[in-house]
Amino acid sequence: MIKFFEKDPYAPIQYVYDVEDILYKGKSDFQEIMVIKNPHFGNMLVLDGVVQITERDEFLYHEMLVHVVMHAHPEPRKVVVIGGGDGGAVREVLKHKSVEKVYFIEIDEEVIKVSKKFFPSVAGGVDDRRVEIKCMDGAEFVKNRDGDIDAVIVDSTDIIGFAKSLFTVEFFKSVKDSLTDDGMFVTLSESLHFHKDMVIEVQEAMKLIFPIVDLYTAPLATYAGNWWTFSAASKKHNLRDIKTEYRIDTKYYNDEIHRQAFLPPKVYEKLMQRKLQW
Amino acid sequence: MIKFFEKDPYAPIQYVYDVEDILYKGKSDFQEIMVIKNPHFGNMLVLDGVVQITERDEFLYHEMLVHVVMHAHPEPRKVVVIGGGDGGAVREVLKHKSVEKVYFIEIDEEVIKVSKKFFPSVAGGVDDRRVEIKCMDGAEFVKNRDGDIDAVIVDSTDIIGFAKSLFTVEFFKSVKDSLTDDGMFVTLSESLHFHKDMVIEVQEAMKLIFPIVDLYTAPLATYAGNWWTFSAASKKHNLRDIKTEYRIDTKYYNDEIHRQAFLPPKVYEKLMQRKLQW
Repeated sequence: MIKFFEKDPYAPIQYVYDVEDILYKGKSDFQEIMVIKNPHFGNMLVLDGVVQITERDEFLYHEMLVHVVMHAHPEPRKVVVIGGGDGGAVREVLKHKSVEKVYFIEIDEEVIKVSKKFFPSVAGGVDDRRVEIKCMDGAEFVKNRDGDIDAVIVDSTDIIGFAKSLFTVEFFKSVKDSLTDDGMFVTLSESLHFHKDMVIEVQEAMKLIFPIVDLYTAPLATYAGNWWTFSAASKKHNLRDIKTEYRIDTKYYNDEIHRQAFLPPKVYEKLMQRKLQW
Repeated sequence: MIKFFEKDPYAPIQYVYDVEDILYKGKSDFQEIMVIKNPHFGNMLVLDGVVQITERDEFLYHEMLVHVVMHAHPEPRKVVVIGGGDGGAVREVLKHKSVEKVYFIEIDEEVIKVSKKFFPSVAGGVDDRRVEIKCMDGAEFVKNRDGDIDAVIVDSTDIIGFAKSLFTVEFFKSVKDSLTDDGMFVTLSESLHFHKDMVIEVQEAMKLIFPIVDLYTAPLATYAGNWWTFSAASKKHNLRDIKTEYRIDTKYYNDEIHRQAFLPPKVYEKLMQRKLQW
């Protein structure tokens, strides 16, 4: 059997996958793009040697990334998705009927092209008439907007690497200014097992800018450390409350999961005081 | 760098660890026992090629295995720990002051010896005067008891393999008969990511015997599939409620985690109807 050894220098466990076939291998201006086929996970998108999505379980990540803030907002209409070139986050955003416009900001056009070809069930939504694709730096896009955005969703590669402009205080400030008063922001913030300090740093930086900042997790088998965190922020709404009146069709996310995903208060406090040891 | 490739034929991702040193390698009557040293996780106990515990994160598993049922019981006094030769479960049980007696039933004496030597902070409690060690099959031990046990805690190796006698309806019946009316039972039941059918089967089998059966999870980085499940059962107490009046000293488990760890009702129902897809 041919093997793929994931290349994640920051993970103390290396993940190895069986490879049935290499469906695509290329180099864009930004990164190496690869699509491999695995007997369990189906097609897998790999960027610079790190697994981004798999056909089998991408819904779990995309649902948890998108639907928490989209339900904490009373009626999200204009949404910005930064990264997520595979289209999965956009697909989930479009499930919300209130949505009128999605700015889909992916720096690497090649990822969109490859995803359309090898992950049609994921990337299918990007051609929706409500979606405007811009191949540019997400940090640039949110600068100097009019405060007309309801939700900014960051679906980048790992914090280490060229995505790091999306994890600065300056970026968080631009995001806040781009949002309406009901506005919401969410970004991945790595694994609670393997990158606890990074999680704390993202939370601390967001708290310098937003009055309400929170942290929720989801168990994701194909991301090193699995216990994946999402850092979310808002200007006035409690992120743990569901504000939308409608419910959407999902495989995993529901109102119970929404509430349960957040770190309990005492555990959150212990984490932020750097008293959680593992 | 020397590498250890975990040998778990049922996991679609293979985990690879750096090896600083091989501290022990031997063969008992039951299995191959190995202790390796990893730069991140410290000493790691490996049985038949599968990681059992690591110095760094064993507390997370042991706390979640032990403290949920031990707090759902109003006053646990006599406890049976089956497996868990490393001693971590026994250590956690002994934190409960109400405990007068722990029957520690480990089939493989060698695992206890090796753990005492290489994991003193884990195995330290097994010499406590309240602990009675019996090197025998746990399924045999619980047969024909007098209904005097408050909690049975199974900390075995994977369900596949020689531990399978601990996952039969017959065993669950013996456990129930060994318990007082307040009695509690908990066992590991593999990963919700990778072994969903096995989780369902354990739950179904336990429901044939116990009036109250429930399922909770914990995120464990060093077990393949990570999203680890624990199947718990009782004769009359709701497992989600905390009944003990005291609280104990833990690194992760607390009353918030106790409640949050259980699968939410709608998600649990979807799982058991085999409608959760991933």
